[in-house]
Amino acid sequence: MSCYGENLRLNIFGQSHSPAIGMTLDGVPAGVRIDFDALQSFLDRRAPGRSELSTARKEDDIPEFISGLLDGVTCGTPITAIIRNKDARKEDYLEYKNLPRPGHADYTAAIKYGGYQDYSGGGAFSGRMTAPLCIAGGICIQLLEAQGIKVISRIYSIGDVYDTGELTDSLLHKNFPTVDDEQGLKMQQLIQNVKNSGDSVGGIIECAVLNLPAGLGGPLFDGMESRISAAAFGIPGVKGIDFGLGIDAAKAKGSENNDPYTVKDGRIVTETNNCGGILGGITNGMPLRFRLFMKPTPSIAKAQRSVDMVSIQEKEIKVSGRHDPCIVPRAVPCAEAAAAVAVYDALLGREKETRPKWI
Amino acid sequence: MSCYGENLRLNIFGQSHSPAIGMTLDGVPAGVRIDFDALQSFLDRRAPGRSELSTARKEDDIPEFISGLLDGVTCGTPITAIIRNKDARKEDYLEYKNLPRPGHADYTAAIKYGGYQDYSGGGAFSGRMTAPLCIAGGICIQLLEAQGIKVISRIYSIGDVYDTGELTDSLLHKNFPTVDDEQGLKMQQLIQNVKNSGDSVGGIIECAVLNLPAGLGGPLFDGMESRISAAAFGIPGVKGIDFGLGIDAAKAKGSENNDPYTVKDGRIVTETNNCGGILGGITNGMPLRFRLFMKPTPSIAKAQRSVDMVSIQEKEIKVSGRHDPCIVPRAVPCAEAAAAVAVYDALLGREKETRPKWI
Amino acid sequence: MSCYGENLRLNIFGQSHSPAIGMTLDGVPAGVRIDFDALQSFLDRRAPGRSELSTARKEDDIPEFISGLLDGVTCGTPITAIIRNKDARKEDYLEYKNLPRPGHADYTAAIKYGGYQDYSGGGAFSGRMTAPLCIAGGICIQLLEAQGIKVISRIYSIGDVYDTGELTDSLLHKNFPTVDDEQGLKMQQLIQNVKNSGDSVGGIIECAVLNLPAGLGGPLFDGMESRISAAAFGIPGVKGIDFGLGIDAAKAKGSENNDPYTVKDGRIVTETNNCGGILGGITNGMPLRFRLFMKPTPSIAKAQRSVDMVSIQEKEIKVSGRHDPCIVPRAVPCAEAAAAVAVYDALLGREKETRPKWI
Amino acid sequence: MSCYGENLRLNIFGQSHSPAIGMTLDGVPAGVRIDFDALQSFLDRRAPGRSELSTARKEDDIPEFISGLLDGVTCGTPITAIIRNKDARKEDYLEYKNLPRPGHADYTAAIKYGGYQDYSGGGAFSGRMTAPLCIAGGICIQLLEAQGIKVISRIYSIGDVYDTGELTDSLLHKNFPTVDDEQGLKMQQLIQNVKNSGDSVGGIIECAVLNLPAGLGGPLFDGMESRISAAAFGIPGVKGIDFGLGIDAAKAKGSENNDPYTVKDGRIVTETNNCGGILGGITNGMPLRFRLFMKPTPSIAKAQRSVDMVSIQEKEIKVSGRHDPCIVPRAVPCAEAAAAVAVYDALLGREKETRPKWI
Repeated sequence: MSCYGENLRLNIFGQSHSPAIGMTLDGVPAGVRIDFDALQSFLDRRAPGRSELSTARKEDDIPEFISGLLDGVTCGTPITAIIRNKDARKEDYLEYKNLPRPGHADYTAAIKYGGYQDYSGGGAFSGRMTAPLCIAGGICIQLLEAQGIKVISRIYSIGDVYDTGELTDSLLHKNFPTVDDEQGLKMQQLIQNVKNSGDSVGGIIECAVLNLPAGLGGPLFDGMESRISAAAFGIPGVKGIDFGLGIDAAKAKGSENNDPYTVKDGRIVTETNNCGGILGGITNGMPLRFRLFMKPTPSIAKAQRSVDMVSIQEKEIKVSGRHDPCIVPRAVPCAEAAAAVAVYDALLGREKETRPKWI
Repeated sequence: MSCYGENLRLNIFGQSHSPAIGMTLDGVPAGVRIDFDALQSFLDRRAPGRSELSTARKEDDIPEFISGLLDGVTCGTPITAIIRNKDARKEDYLEYKNLPRPGHADYTAAIKYGGYQDYSGGGAFSGRMTAPLCIAGGICIQLLEAQGIKVISRIYSIGDVYDTGELTDSLLHKNFPTVDDEQGLKMQQLIQNVKNSGDSVGGIIECAVLNLPAGLGGPLFDGMESRISAAAFGIPGVKGIDFGLGIDAAKAKGSENNDPYTVKDGRIVTETNNCGGILGGITNGMPLRFRLFMKPTPSIAKAQRSVDMVSIQEKEIKVSGRHDPCIVPRAVPCAEAAAAVAVYDALLGREKETRPKWI
Repeated sequence: MSCYGENLRLNIFGQSHSPAIGMTLDGVPAGVRIDFDALQSFLDRRAPGRSELSTARKEDDIPEFISGLLDGVTCGTPITAIIRNKDARKEDYLEYKNLPRPGHADYTAAIKYGGYQDYSGGGAFSGRMTAPLCIAGGICIQLLEAQGIKVISRIYSIGDVYDTGELTDSLLHKNFPTVDDEQGLKMQQLIQNVKNSGDSVGGIIECAVLNLPAGLGGPLFDGMESRISAAAFGIPGVKGIDFGLGIDAAKAKGSENNDPYTVKDGRIVTETNNCGGILGGITNGMPLRFRLFMKPTPSIAKAQRSVDMVSIQEKEIKVSGRHDPCIVPRAVPCAEAAAAVAVYDALLGREKETRPKWI
Repeated sequence: MSCYGENLRLNIFGQSHSPAIGMTLDGVPAGVRIDFDALQSFLDRRAPGRSELSTARKEDDIPEFISGLLDGVTCGTPITAIIRNKDARKEDYLEYKNLPRPGHADYTAAIKYGGYQDYSGGGAFSGRMTAPLCIAGGICIQLLEAQGIKVISRIYSIGDVYDTGELTDSLLHKNFPTVDDEQGLKMQQLIQNVKNSGDSVGGIIECAVLNLPAGLGGPLFDGMESRISAAAFGIPGVKGIDFGLGIDAAKAKGSENNDPYTVKDGRIVTETNNCGGILGGITNGMPLRFRLFMKPTPSIAKAQRSVDMVSIQEKEIKVSGRHDPCIVPRAVPCAEAAAAVAVYDALLGREKETRPKWI
């Protein structure tokens, strides 16, 4: 069962072509006014059909809040929002019911659900299911911002083109969020090229949570790495995650990787941030940094080899339908959403973990 | 709260120097005979003091099973096993109570627990807490093997020395599990060198689960990547994880990364395994493969900079105590344990998810 | 957070006057065809406005399934159904925002949610929230029936009028389900009388699950009593529950209360069923029987004493709005729903608990 | 799987005759000094062998804390305590392996665990398993008391002998806690009589939690009734529970049952407390009151009828071993423990539910 959170509880439901998709977020305190404009702006960053580099599928992706609010303010009970699926073209997918598209969940879903899976448009495995994640994430971002905490991210790489420089919060206002605009243009050119050649390409997203208090998370499975990765791998296409120096820490010496402590403005901080703001699974007050390694979109125009699941015969497949040549740009807000949900969940936990005043 | 599992439930308790450490594993079916010799052999691979490359701390690490068994056979109720902490030298750590060791959880635990943390030996953040994980994992490995499923792993790299070749199950019998023994010797030499220089080094573990049925896991947060990463990041020192082609998938094109389907012995398989045996969060019957990127041991003999948490004054710290110059070799069975717990949990889930015969 | 189930997961959302109410039921296996007519008939037993003894509020209570189905068959992903709130008259409740109705959750919700509660119609505390429970329960009833398991119930008493005889499954077809129709008429007369006098009355529901296999549930908190009571107290107005001889067992001797074993048709059964089909928290194959003790509807026409929460002044309150003089008749399907969800959840658990064949 | 708590997590492990029994309580804040003397006094109230009315089994029942404490103060990580089983006489039970004792879990455990159950002394179904519950409960009681909250209880009835008067906290110091000592003596006489006749008898425990803040719990399955009943039915022998007027509310009119609001010392209170301190599943600040209806001890000296599970032949059974003729007196602290765990869990939840100051 897919469910996220210990102090919050996030349930996402729907399929690519079901009447609606949506989410229920339980555990948000009462009395929080939702900024619907800000939320919609956040959702729009993920929505399809906004650029020529993304899928042609058009969806307004405007959520309807059916519970949990009173006059736009949380009333303490579960928040449920749904998005109607308007531009569903089931017929595009009928041919794939028995002919699994390589790199998609078609085959594995057919096995898991014994042939009863919703095969159209990837069903519950569609990238479209990140829209509800972004509703939840967008709400959590507002809750975090009310406390001064910011979630920012950038496109770290597309294929072999890498961004340069460091994450800053000016990135939130960019359509194609790279620090180095020149590299950003090269990335977009690369995406256009792979699209033209009927192919797709992967990339890396870097995400940071700033102004986070120290003390969130815990030992063992309670660690922030476990919490964030469990959320982030919920985004289709993510095949790797690392924190701080991360994969490069595996090549480093202790004397290089350890972050020395120092004092700044009377507070204990680390000079470097190789640990990505997490030690022993617990935030240390430095920026929490992680990267998501995303595979190339599995839907490509090129002919591929598949096997008919009924006849068990090999067969060529050409995937039509409407797809992104690179999922990374639209996945950026999804990464922020996953981070925000995980971090806000941990933040709520701190409230109850703190030693009560009365003892 | 640290707890793992949806169909199993694993709780780990204890601190490095508490009277005992241990685990409770609930959800194991009744009627399973535990092979204690095999379990002890598995635990011995993790135990300290076995080689000159590991910490000098000596612990027998022989678990006492205090519940859940009747004459060595599971009786269906929670299995609890404890290991007494014998060689605890609390005094080694008194000086670190207020002087956090860089790269350790000393500072973050102090913040989270408001100064009440068990500071000696890293408390609940000690690598020693992986012993209970290995008890649970060792039991799950036996449960998986009864079904023909194998968990294998190797040291993929130490620092910049990489193993070559592919994972095979002959690795289980090696003291220093690399496919390429020559590279293994170079790795050990590197560890000896960093030890001599008062430093430490990181590395990568590769782990695979073989003969796994297709259909385990699920969409979104129910995916095997979410499940395995949530377990694996419970191992202290893990800072990254990837599945299949993983971090390299971010550089690949769709036509390179997609695994074409083909037929082999009448069964649908993929020709390559870039997805690491997981599509849409669900196993596809190919080997489930992942890598753990581990940071260098934070305890190093070299002098480091820290800050006294009481006086907020910078202060040099020299970490004495007994430590591994490289945690990777002893973490190999921990990776297998995390994988086994996660996979067995998913396997149990399949039992209830399968469409009942009566419908 | 309100959530039910270990092997299923049921989330209910909505408020009495929010745009919609609904539920998400995760964990139902794929491949189950929902009988929508049977489900609607079940929901109609709970729906308001069907008799002159129930509230005058009119709602169609026809659920829209927005996810989890493909052509009316479960596809394995979460089932979400919503019911639009059509006949919402918020203005009826404005005066109660600060003047809590005795016996209702007005005061406690105001405290818990710090004044941000949805006060109209009881918000998330409304009896209307049992409609989503009945959707989930109606689905589980179908899943149980496919296996030969039946959930039946009756009105055991209204006020001091008690039914006679034993539960049979012919009750399912009665509008006012008592075994003894004469007593049923007396009960209805009593309800009419209290209605006429501007009052309300409580009662008892008896519920049984027949043909249940032995072996469901478990020790301690895993017991069927814990599971069923946790679900049943989710129904507003339930203030007590007992199993089998239940409250009368507290007066009995062991020699009277113990159910002797005997053999019937080659199977081990008990001669009596004082335990209500549960021993040690586990079903024994006899009918699982429990009773719900329901308080009188708190909304009564008579003047009552309350206190204005702003001025902290005592004030008389007359509750208008539309209400049932006795909630018991409409709560009967809710009791069945709670039982069905709890039992089906336990039944799914058995699938994974059973000793695997391969060991 | 048996596990309790949303904000705490309580796992109980062990069997009547396993090497040890114990519990892990996760989620207790760091910095709490455990009063071991007070805890032991609490445990002694439950321990066997203290009076001639209880079982002759002698156990010291002194818990060893093996984790979660540093010098007697909680350090924030899971608290695990174990009690060694010293006076285990497995041989007493061998004859019952295949011959289920009426009223016990022998038959149901055999079915659930496929014959692999720990049959001696009731295994995990033994009343002995309430000792770990009382460790957890005793800790929670101290945590509650630090906040001024008291858990008190009394023997409400034994068989048909009822206590009189109202609960007061002087009861905590009585060996046989009734308000009316004369009735208490009659109860003890009754227990002695049933013991002499080789029989046993049931009874009722009343429990109250005083000085509880309003606002704990929530709608639907989050209600205090669901939470407390899920905990309380974990005590073997409990067959019913009610809150406030409870079972008698089912006979009442709304005008009798509703608790009118009034003002006392500037605070809003109810004049009566028929709701038992809970409205809409949420505490209202009045004493939280519930009663547990306990069946007579199933172990009686009289001959009973059973069936051999192997031969499926009827057979007379005489239960020897050591047993309480009435479990109620020793169950009193268990009721307090269940209440304390449930209430403290809800109290921790309030910390995170409260609207954050920063919004």
